[in-house]
Amino acid sequence: MTTEHRFFDVAALSRRDCYKLLIGTVIPRPIALVTTVNETGQVNAAPFSFFNVLSDDPPILALGVENHADMSLKDTAHNIRMTEVFTVNIVSAEIIAAMNVCAVPFSPEIDELAEAGLTPLPGVHIPVPRIAEAPAAFECERHTTLEIGRARQIILGRIVGIHVRADAVDERNHVDPDRIDAIGRMGGHGYAFTRDLFDLPTMTHAEWRARQDDLQTT
Amino acid sequence: MTTEHRFFDVAALSRRDCYKLLIGTVIPRPIALVTTVNETGQVNAAPFSFFNVLSDDPPILALGVENHADMSLKDTAHNIRMTEVFTVNIVSAEIIAAMNVCAVPFSPEIDELAEAGLTPLPGVHIPVPRIAEAPAAFECERHTTLEIGRARQIILGRIVGIHVRADAVDERNHVDPDRIDAIGRMGGHGYAFTRDLFDLPTMTHAEWRARQDDLQTT
Repeated sequence: MTTEHRFFDVAALSRRDCYKLLIGTVIPRPIALVTTVNETGQVNAAPFSFFNVLSDDPPILALGVENHADMSLKDTAHNIRMTEVFTVNIVSAEIIAAMNVCAVPFSPEIDELAEAGLTPLPGVHIPVPRIAEAPAAFECERHTTLEIGRARQIILGRIVGIHVRADAVDERNHVDPDRIDAIGRMGGHGYAFTRDLFDLPTMTHAEWRARQDDLQTT
Repeated sequence: MTTEHRFFDVAALSRRDCYKLLIGTVIPRPIALVTTVNETGQVNAAPFSFFNVLSDDPPILALGVENHADMSLKDTAHNIRMTEVFTVNIVSAEIIAAMNVCAVPFSPEIDELAEAGLTPLPGVHIPVPRIAEAPAAFECERHTTLEIGRARQIILGRIVGIHVRADAVDERNHVDPDRIDAIGRMGGHGYAFTRDLFDLPTMTHAEWRARQDDLQTT
């Protein structure tokens, strides 16, 4: 079914309208609940959905981090600049309410993890706590920071350690999505569960050919 | 509930195991069905889930594109290098089987859109077709390419035009996720529907305070 589309010229859009269209259409987005520490060891936690893994070799993930309205860095970007390390914690249905507490604009001296009732555990390779309740966490060293404009930084992190719930990963390193029970970010205030799943194997060229031959025969 | 985790030291992981762990835990990932043209105008289409929007001002999206085993560029990366433009088409449930045809490793002279039964429509700002059946599409100009290693490029695109199904966007530019009906990428051969949704508004500091006062009163 082909439907009509509306075209939006980005040059003619307000920043707010462009943002609404992007978060409403690039869906579902994985959520990074990012933990960092500042120069004095104060812990910060904040969620981001301008986030994904972008490379496996080397393993690199990216965060798009917004600056304050006055263009100063928010806590996460400040802490990564000062310490060059951060941990990405994946958000499951179990900790979605706690994640939303971490999204409250607290002042820097507030420990979001304590307010949210989440448990910090020490990192293995980096001096940043991970969240015990998160189904997976990635210890990252800052790889590259791109100053993409006044309003945003893109921070690339090289993953040096991976934590996965022991009951969610088998001996062949296959991960069980039901045990991860991740939440995806949608537009507006929306979120999506990842409980309605299906498999669709990628076809080799020979499998594609065989399928075409079948279609012509029947 | 706190559970035990397994720790994986990335330095000790094979590339294959690292890949399996990353695609199984950074979920759900949005899917970019990327259309490009080569120097002679031949159209290519290929899906990527190492993809997300990373900035709204300027509007920037990122693709993590794997090279061939011999380190040569695959068609998408080659075409973006030669033409500096590409279009990201969002994948809905309706076109998931067609997307999977585009993932077949055809030789460069094959038009994946024709094989998949998808309809090309001309771009507005760039000479790259978008897919008529996709619920949303983003016309992009190459912003920055990061050679992150032998195996991967990270390509940042500046979005210059946005197409959205007319019946999926209202006069306030709010997008209806049910009309987009996007598919998310999970680990292995897995995919997720985005039909099981919920809303969770971010709290202001005052709303958080009020909620804390309520909890202490009751």
